[in-house]
Amino acid sequence: MKVKVSRKAHFNAAHRLYRKDWSDKKNDAVFGKCNNPNFHGHNYELIVSIFGEIDPETGFVMDMKVLKDLIAHEIEDALDHKNLNLEVPEFAALNPTAENIAVVIWHKLRPHIDDKNTLEVQLYETPRNFVTFKG
Amino acid sequence: MKVKVSRKAHFNAAHRLYRKDWSDKKNDAVFGKCNNPNFHGHNYELIVSIFGEIDPETGFVMDMKVLKDLIAHEIEDALDHKNLNLEVPEFAALNPTAENIAVVIWHKLRPHIDDKNTLEVQLYETPRNFVTFKG
Amino acid sequence: MKVKVSRKAHFNAAHRLYRKDWSDKKNDAVFGKCNNPNFHGHNYELIVSIFGEIDPETGFVMDMKVLKDLIAHEIEDALDHKNLNLEVPEFAALNPTAENIAVVIWHKLRPHIDDKNTLEVQLYETPRNFVTFKG
Amino acid sequence: MKVKVSRKAHFNAAHRLYRKDWSDKKNDAVFGKCNNPNFHGHNYELIVSIFGEIDPETGFVMDMKVLKDLIAHEIEDALDHKNLNLEVPEFAALNPTAENIAVVIWHKLRPHIDDKNTLEVQLYETPRNFVTFKG
Amino acid sequence: MKVKVSRKAHFNAAHRLYRKDWSDKKNDAVFGKCNNPNFHGHNYELIVSIFGEIDPETGFVMDMKVLKDLIAHEIEDALDHKNLNLEVPEFAALNPTAENIAVVIWHKLRPHIDDKNTLEVQLYETPRNFVTFKG
Amino acid sequence: MKVKVSRKAHFNAAHRLYRKDWSDKKNDAVFGKCNNPNFHGHNYELIVSIFGEIDPETGFVMDMKVLKDLIAHEIEDALDHKNLNLEVPEFAALNPTAENIAVVIWHKLRPHIDDKNTLEVQLYETPRNFVTFKG
Repeated sequence: MKVKVSRKAHFNAAHRLYRKDWSDKKNDAVFGKCNNPNFHGHNYELIVSIFGEIDPETGFVMDMKVLKDLIAHEIEDALDHKNLNLEVPEFAALNPTAENIAVVIWHKLRPHIDDKNTLEVQLYETPRNFVTFKG
Repeated sequence: MKVKVSRKAHFNAAHRLYRKDWSDKKNDAVFGKCNNPNFHGHNYELIVSIFGEIDPETGFVMDMKVLKDLIAHEIEDALDHKNLNLEVPEFAALNPTAENIAVVIWHKLRPHIDDKNTLEVQLYETPRNFVTFKG
Repeated sequence: MKVKVSRKAHFNAAHRLYRKDWSDKKNDAVFGKCNNPNFHGHNYELIVSIFGEIDPETGFVMDMKVLKDLIAHEIEDALDHKNLNLEVPEFAALNPTAENIAVVIWHKLRPHIDDKNTLEVQLYETPRNFVTFKG
Repeated sequence: MKVKVSRKAHFNAAHRLYRKDWSDKKNDAVFGKCNNPNFHGHNYELIVSIFGEIDPETGFVMDMKVLKDLIAHEIEDALDHKNLNLEVPEFAALNPTAENIAVVIWHKLRPHIDDKNTLEVQLYETPRNFVTFKG
Repeated sequence: MKVKVSRKAHFNAAHRLYRKDWSDKKNDAVFGKCNNPNFHGHNYELIVSIFGEIDPETGFVMDMKVLKDLIAHEIEDALDHKNLNLEVPEFAALNPTAENIAVVIWHKLRPHIDDKNTLEVQLYETPRNFVTFKG
Repeated sequence: MKVKVSRKAHFNAAHRLYRKDWSDKKNDAVFGKCNNPNFHGHNYELIVSIFGEIDPETGFVMDMKVLKDLIAHEIEDALDHKNLNLEVPEFAALNPTAENIAVVIWHKLRPHIDDKNTLEVQLYETPRNFVTFKG
């Protein structure tokens, strides 16, 4: 009896898309206004999903309160109201695209999730752009 | 040409998370304020999805009007404006977590869906907590 | 330079619409399935708005963090995961319709809001039914 | 490192569900008021998703600006503010159900998407009815 | 103790913006692709609000079930799955813009609402375009 | 016959709440993590509303296409993907709170709106925090 349980959270942050090893001209050509050197920002909406067996005792796959607190400590504390390029070590040498942010979030959460369960991360950069990573 | 068709519905209900065979202390420790003996409640948003071949004659996997009426009769009539613990037989001995409610809904709908098609139930307990069950 | 600032919050609760001084028959006739004696429940979405002058020093009408904490302490602590009829003193003799809940919330918040400012409460009982009270 | 990237778009259109080779009576029996010969219409919300490897250079599976423009040229120009039955060649002999529209959109986009990537189309006919096609 | 109670409903319809007494050229210049002679359509989301005193007996400004049924009979039956230009008498000589549709809905509902109460109609033509009329 | 017509738009930007004439300590005390010197950011959702008479010829208060283009040129071009503190002249000496941004947007749009009509600006900084300014 496998069920996927999902918890929605959010954080907001500044970022800039660019590569240090590219010229300004190439960064502009590829990333357009997302390459603004003064940064821009987003309200990121995050959905974290755990897929696993229902515990027959509690009726939970995972206690949502525990999942909520885990997201708060591991993700919101690390990313909320931050400049992703300047203040989040994972993006020191990694372009903070929605794809890469989702993968980073997955890696930060994975050690805290039961090995038997699957972890999925969905990240909305805007209400019209979003990505999904299952690891 | 397999397509998934989805229909959104909703119901609201009171419930309480607890196990009769546990002490009050253990129920409180595990379920927190969801164990309030006077109950609390939710607006449950429900998405029922059917995955199957498009009928080349009608262009439908399943007529949405039929699916809407099926959900109304099998699920809304049974759960809407009800106390899940006290009035819904399936939860007489089953903790009405979102996970268990989704599984119960799946079993109530499955006999009415064509055997060749797959049935998926997604249930939002709140806009931030939801579960998905594919059977 | 008057601006209205709004903060969204939510709580969930069980309730029942009925009057003790009416017969069961009359309660059923007027309140229908909302009169279920075993209760039902909702996810209440709450929008609290303050209308007043922008403070030229801070650029705030009211600090949203302060408003968020005020709603948490005065409203969420009092109503979240509660049975409105049985556990919230304001509804001991008052029918917990959306209209009455909005008025009760307004009276709980009003003493904490600057006299010069206007207070508005909007309460969604479901995504399709909501009420607004300006006091 | 495979990620699904999604882009939301929309268009509105008139349509009518019916088959030329059926009698009016049969069309009415099967399609009900959706068979109104004077047409009705919808705001179609469209989510196009691409599943593939993250390009290690850009951090993109596919540049969202490119995907946005592709949807505008291939889908919105063809379907927005159109009568699907009368003006869109693909529906000259195909009933414009949500299922069939999703399949048509998929076929219009597929030639423009990298062969190594998977394409998924999700189409909301109303906020309560939607379909998903993965090809 | 005046409160505004609101009920959300929806209908979908085909329409076309144009004036019979204008040339095709002028209709095109002013209404653009909304003037498509084959029609296009929308999912109209409708919010009907009543502002008045809370009845101290029931706790209602107006029973939401009554308001829901009123909208169903007066508005949904008249407009849902219809071609506004061809099938709705009010638009025989009136351009069915969102503004005019809102005014027509207001006039259809007004005779059924208590004289002491105020009526407001909000109509979403798309998620990005909407109008509000208070009469 | 006065109607309010509304158009939704959006932009995203980086910002920081602080006053140059305050000490770091005071900025931190008042603005908390919103004072991060490396900036953070938001997806701002903007609703611009015009209240005025329906033109009996067109059935419009204001052509939505014109309003959409006006918002694009005056607001999105000026604020989208920008650092509000560093790149938008209006905030050189003005703290970019939601309140102040709404007032700035109102002043940028007002000269382009017919004098007879009223202009209202609603700005969502996050889905839970928003402000409304009527001028």
